[in-house]
Amino acid sequence: MALIVQKYGGTSMGSVERIEHVASKVKSFHDQGHQVVVVVSAMSGETDRLLKLAKSINPRGSARELDQIISTGEQVTIGLLALALQKAGLKSRSYTGPQVAIRTDEAYGKARIQSIDGEKLLADCREGVVPVVAGFQGLSPDGSTATLGRGGSDTTGVAIAAAMKADECQIYTDVDGVYTTDPRVEPAARRLDKITFEEMLEMASLGSKVLQIRAVEFAGKYKVPLRVVSTFVDGPGTLITLEEDNVESPLVSGIAFNRDEAQLTVNGVPDKPGIAAAILGPIGDANVEVDMIVQNIGADGATDFTFTVHRNDFEKAHEISKKVAASLGAKGVLPASDIVKVSLVGVGMRSHAGIASKMFKVLADEGINIRMISTSEIKISVVVQDKYLELAVRSLHKAFGLENAPPKV
Amino acid sequence: MALIVQKYGGTSMGSVERIEHVASKVKSFHDQGHQVVVVVSAMSGETDRLLKLAKSINPRGSARELDQIISTGEQVTIGLLALALQKAGLKSRSYTGPQVAIRTDEAYGKARIQSIDGEKLLADCREGVVPVVAGFQGLSPDGSTATLGRGGSDTTGVAIAAAMKADECQIYTDVDGVYTTDPRVEPAARRLDKITFEEMLEMASLGSKVLQIRAVEFAGKYKVPLRVVSTFVDGPGTLITLEEDNVESPLVSGIAFNRDEAQLTVNGVPDKPGIAAAILGPIGDANVEVDMIVQNIGADGATDFTFTVHRNDFEKAHEISKKVAASLGAKGVLPASDIVKVSLVGVGMRSHAGIASKMFKVLADEGINIRMISTSEIKISVVVQDKYLELAVRSLHKAFGLENAPPKV
Repeated sequence: MALIVQKYGGTSMGSVERIEHVASKVKSFHDQGHQVVVVVSAMSGETDRLLKLAKSINPRGSARELDQIISTGEQVTIGLLALALQKAGLKSRSYTGPQVAIRTDEAYGKARIQSIDGEKLLADCREGVVPVVAGFQGLSPDGSTATLGRGGSDTTGVAIAAAMKADECQIYTDVDGVYTTDPRVEPAARRLDKITFEEMLEMASLGSKVLQIRAVEFAGKYKVPLRVVSTFVDGPGTLITLEEDNVESPLVSGIAFNRDEAQLTVNGVPDKPGIAAAILGPIGDANVEVDMIVQNIGADGATDFTFTVHRNDFEKAHEISKKVAASLGAKGVLPASDIVKVSLVGVGMRSHAGIASKMFKVLADEGINIRMISTSEIKISVVVQDKYLELAVRSLHKAFGLENAPPKV
Repeated sequence: MALIVQKYGGTSMGSVERIEHVASKVKSFHDQGHQVVVVVSAMSGETDRLLKLAKSINPRGSARELDQIISTGEQVTIGLLALALQKAGLKSRSYTGPQVAIRTDEAYGKARIQSIDGEKLLADCREGVVPVVAGFQGLSPDGSTATLGRGGSDTTGVAIAAAMKADECQIYTDVDGVYTTDPRVEPAARRLDKITFEEMLEMASLGSKVLQIRAVEFAGKYKVPLRVVSTFVDGPGTLITLEEDNVESPLVSGIAFNRDEAQLTVNGVPDKPGIAAAILGPIGDANVEVDMIVQNIGADGATDFTFTVHRNDFEKAHEISKKVAASLGAKGVLPASDIVKVSLVGVGMRSHAGIASKMFKVLADEGINIRMISTSEIKISVVVQDKYLELAVRSLHKAFGLENAPPKV
């Protein structure tokens, strides 16, 4: 018998039929003897509908009032799911975030969870009751309702699992797990049985939008085993675990990519201390987030400084860069928005040399020019021209044998 | 400067435009220097929509879960009105019933208010903030949300006014006050400037559905001056006050009527102790509510026992009555569903003889046969055939001079 926290998203709550389907899934776990706590999102579209209604009255109203309004979306679905579970013959009670004392800070609209008292939920579980908790919301210090920001329901699930010391937190979604890469780009992409928290963070932040990053961080911090599963297709999903479980993990776990970046190179900058700050300071001041940063050792007293930003910020960052380049006495700025970032991710890289050179060779053999390289302990990212995305992902997927399941340990 | 609690119903909250209209009304009171606390209902139709959604999942789910779901209706409107007030330039904060600590018992779906801590709202008022409170809901003993049952928003308004010792509780609705009778039946019906709590209770329970009965009882008990006003038409409305304010009140204040009743007479019942209980016991056991009850002193050892029930319960009550009549050795049961109850209401009746006989004479002069009579301290009710409703109401309205305003005191 295990204690399982299950989180169902807005698509899973999208209609009466789907809510009944979720109830039958919860019941099958309960009937197997597990204790189940359920966390749910609002019906898909409901949060946007409420937000639009509120904005139509006052586009600049207080965030507290917006939270008061949009938090009703989950309050409806928890009640509906509890009713569906009761109809299925289970005992069930619903709880809003405030009711179950999910305490947050007072950053309405993007609050962070401070503490959860798991005792009330554990008491329900002991009595055979299935508690259904509203995701995405909590109780602010002054007793108001605060929302966690978009996607916060994943975080609620993980935080509850941590507070209750649950055996597993299962995130139900419309995909059946984490894949070696996007199946729309490489049809041979394979569902991973396991992935480490660190790999998942790299995969998520690089564009595989399966799980909310904060939820993964939280799960890693509190060592909550996290499983991504499909609501609609039965299967084991992908388990996100601590690295130690994975000693024999393959060198490379997956390939992530990001089409939303653009590249700027300030070239011929006089090479002296402080140029990175001189360039990135004004960029940061303009609220533009920078992703990759690369600077080479300068020859002839000059260097090239390259960084990437989100494509939406490209024009703004370009204008700023030109001014900074002029003031620094640089030769100029080379802009490029037709680029894509491709990354190999895997904890196995740490202890294995040669992954990077193999990656570069594979790309060279395909005639793909690398415009930028950046590495970390468990990932290698390259920037290439965007027309090469499919070719790069497919050739790397094949070269690193990702279509084949790793040997069983 | 006064402290005013204003309650706006579902029709007043029915659209973005109407919410903005309410905000402008609140602002005009605030700008006059008054402290205003607002209580609101859900948008009209929203509670029914949520109830239907819940019932479609589980027609027999727990009342607690239904309350969890339907209480979101007011949570949305309080947020929207607070946003509209902020847009109008006021400071405003919204509160659900639980947030402002409206404590109730645990009778989900028909909970009763136990206590309210007015301090939080008073603190807001002192800081120039307009609090907007959700009607119809409160905090149950175990920390859940409980609803007060239909129409409970009026009660919330009065209870808050009592807890804050407000100068007046204004109930905004789609009628501009309490009338001497229904203007659709008697076009000469006149809006009353004042009416006593007791009269209002009789008017309300007899079918003038302007205010929720419990709200009037509450207001009377805690001596909260209550005013019925129109949201859409400016005017003084009707003030519901303590009797003492009204020494010079007219003999008759208004004429109420009720078309929803049906009459059953068990005739020729052997006249002995216990027959009332023998007849009404099985009726009550079948959850049928009885309104008027009349029994005459028997002649020849037999008596007639007459009572009225809601028309929806007529068939059921008729069947039960027939069985009871047989077991009591009565002659039979006379059913009548084509009846209407017409009542004169007025505190002045207490000290004035002759009202009843004048009423009966007026009806007799019009050729209207009276089927049943029942009296209390401040009302006289008669049951007549339903086709005489208009004639009875109009002739009584004229005979007691209700179309004329009483002389100013």
